[in-house]
Amino acid sequence: MDAARLRLVGGAGPRPDDRQARVDAVLTRYFSVARRRAEPLGAEYVRLWERLEANTIGGKRFRPRMVLAAYESLGGTELDSGACVGAAFELLHTALIVHDDVIDHDFVRRGVPNISGSYRDAARAAGAPEPVAEHRGMSASVIAGDLALMGAYRLIDRSGVDGATRSRLLDVMDEALFASAAGELIDVDFAWLPDAPAVDDIVHMERLKTAVYSFECPLQAGAILAGAPDETVRTLGDFGRDMGIAYQLVDDLLGVFGREEETGKSASGDLREGKRTVLIAYASEKEGWDEVAPLFGSADLDDAGADRLRTHLVACGARGFAEGLARYYANRALARLLEPHIPPALRTELHPIADAVLARRA
Amino acid sequence: MDAARLRLVGGAGPRPDDRQARVDAVLTRYFSVARRRAEPLGAEYVRLWERLEANTIGGKRFRPRMVLAAYESLGGTELDSGACVGAAFELLHTALIVHDDVIDHDFVRRGVPNISGSYRDAARAAGAPEPVAEHRGMSASVIAGDLALMGAYRLIDRSGVDGATRSRLLDVMDEALFASAAGELIDVDFAWLPDAPAVDDIVHMERLKTAVYSFECPLQAGAILAGAPDETVRTLGDFGRDMGIAYQLVDDLLGVFGREEETGKSASGDLREGKRTVLIAYASEKEGWDEVAPLFGSADLDDAGADRLRTHLVACGARGFAEGLARYYANRALARLLEPHIPPALRTELHPIADAVLARRA
Repeated sequence: MDAARLRLVGGAGPRPDDRQARVDAVLTRYFSVARRRAEPLGAEYVRLWERLEANTIGGKRFRPRMVLAAYESLGGTELDSGACVGAAFELLHTALIVHDDVIDHDFVRRGVPNISGSYRDAARAAGAPEPVAEHRGMSASVIAGDLALMGAYRLIDRSGVDGATRSRLLDVMDEALFASAAGELIDVDFAWLPDAPAVDDIVHMERLKTAVYSFECPLQAGAILAGAPDETVRTLGDFGRDMGIAYQLVDDLLGVFGREEETGKSASGDLREGKRTVLIAYASEKEGWDEVAPLFGSADLDDAGADRLRTHLVACGARGFAEGLARYYANRALARLLEPHIPPALRTELHPIADAVLARRA
Repeated sequence: MDAARLRLVGGAGPRPDDRQARVDAVLTRYFSVARRRAEPLGAEYVRLWERLEANTIGGKRFRPRMVLAAYESLGGTELDSGACVGAAFELLHTALIVHDDVIDHDFVRRGVPNISGSYRDAARAAGAPEPVAEHRGMSASVIAGDLALMGAYRLIDRSGVDGATRSRLLDVMDEALFASAAGELIDVDFAWLPDAPAVDDIVHMERLKTAVYSFECPLQAGAILAGAPDETVRTLGDFGRDMGIAYQLVDDLLGVFGREEETGKSASGDLREGKRTVLIAYASEKEGWDEVAPLFGSADLDDAGADRLRTHLVACGARGFAEGLARYYANRALARLLEPHIPPALRTELHPIADAVLARRA
């Protein structure tokens, strides 16, 4: 999920700035200790930590906000513990995107060089041939992602909670990585297997790869930390699952129909790289796909070609189908909040998220 | 560090088979739970867990044996906790070698396909073009390494120890990954920076990359788990550091002068791939290096060329220097065991390790 697109999901509950500031403070402290610890091991290692920290800055702390939204509206008052657990999910997110960039062979994120990019560029500037420079960049990212993952587990351990809560939080953190790894593996295989995946396969993959660790698990972690009853934790997981799927569906719609100035991404990027989405899964089973299929995933797709694909995706009903599916999941998510064991404060906190997800429709 | 070479380090203390069986049981249980949990997420994900488990089989459980050697000879009796912490270090080792193979672009380990290799081969068999198949293999390894790393942290958490001990064990686990990442980063840069690293730089890198997580940290973890006093933990760290460096030096000697049937590795491999070792660092500052240097790291180095390099490394004093340095570190390690706060049982347990390291000299 691209951070630039996350900006549209906002206004979730009270004091979002305070929350972000507390999470930022935890991360700043964490990286400051790591950099000092790295000093005796070499200047380049300090730089790796600096670049890892830079990689966590600029996002909207979406996952920590999910943690804190659940935690505070369920009565949690240990704001430092909440911020610590939130920061842990931010580091998990960092680890996953850094390793996802390795898998996708990406050197740029949000328009600036990522860790791979900055290590590649430095090697290039020092005269390394291009494949050597790229390899150095990728290697640095493999290492940095491992460090971020370690940080995620450590921040849970250091959140100052009792042993039983800590173990449950670690279970949730595990579940987040466990699901994301499964989704990433499926996504890797989508890229090369000749058969186009079906709509359900896409939804399954997107849920595992992103929705579980971005919505379900952070919300559940916040509830566990607040000492909420099991049924509340379960309902929050269900809400997060549905909302996360809706989010991904809208994200895929924006990747094809969104305006570049809003999404921060080229509007033809997803079509050019042949990203498997619900839109494509739907369209590929309808008449007329064979005629436009050669355009999809073509490296030299131009604006005219992208427009032709877009027109086809509207005409064959794919856009309408994906929009309807997103609405279905978002509404199902909202309906779950009506259960009697969901306190009104939590409902008030989470409702705007669903509204914002749906308002994002391009 | 290659597992095949580890076979020579053996006979450390009582009941090594019992220890190995207990550690194996923890890992078998861990992977069995993970596979069952993976089932609803997809058959391919179950296979990834199977391959990750296969990747942990066949080693000699060297790091768990270090944990248990320290733990049991310092009076530890909770053998299941010890096995759990030992297994955690085995999973850390798995994570590190799986990601190291990504960085080195290796598809084979110990003569059989590693995770990258088996995923590449399956994609190949399904008709994927070679770059696509290789990319799939590498991607699976990035994911699998993350899962192994998660497992390392979880097994510490599940070792059933009290909160304070657990936090200290996690600190040690952190230190292991923290150092290994620093060493890996230095090693990555050795491969492309034009300046040949000096002897001290090589020792520094090898210590960080391998010795800390293989010797220092497992021994310290065992001592902490046994409730040993701080000075014992510290001395074990010092012993592990020196012994780990000696081990790496001998490993590098075997990589050049070892007999293939003993090391399980091609005797020309390290020379052909241009591995930066103390031998090379020493030789490259002595007269005559320029004449043989073109052979070093040459992809088509033949047996005659490798023999010429070996002869030069003996003649210029590099072999003698490296052997002397290994003896120096091993003896310094042993001297540390003479401190009065080291109980005789621990000395009896660790002495054979040092003997075995020195006996490995090719």
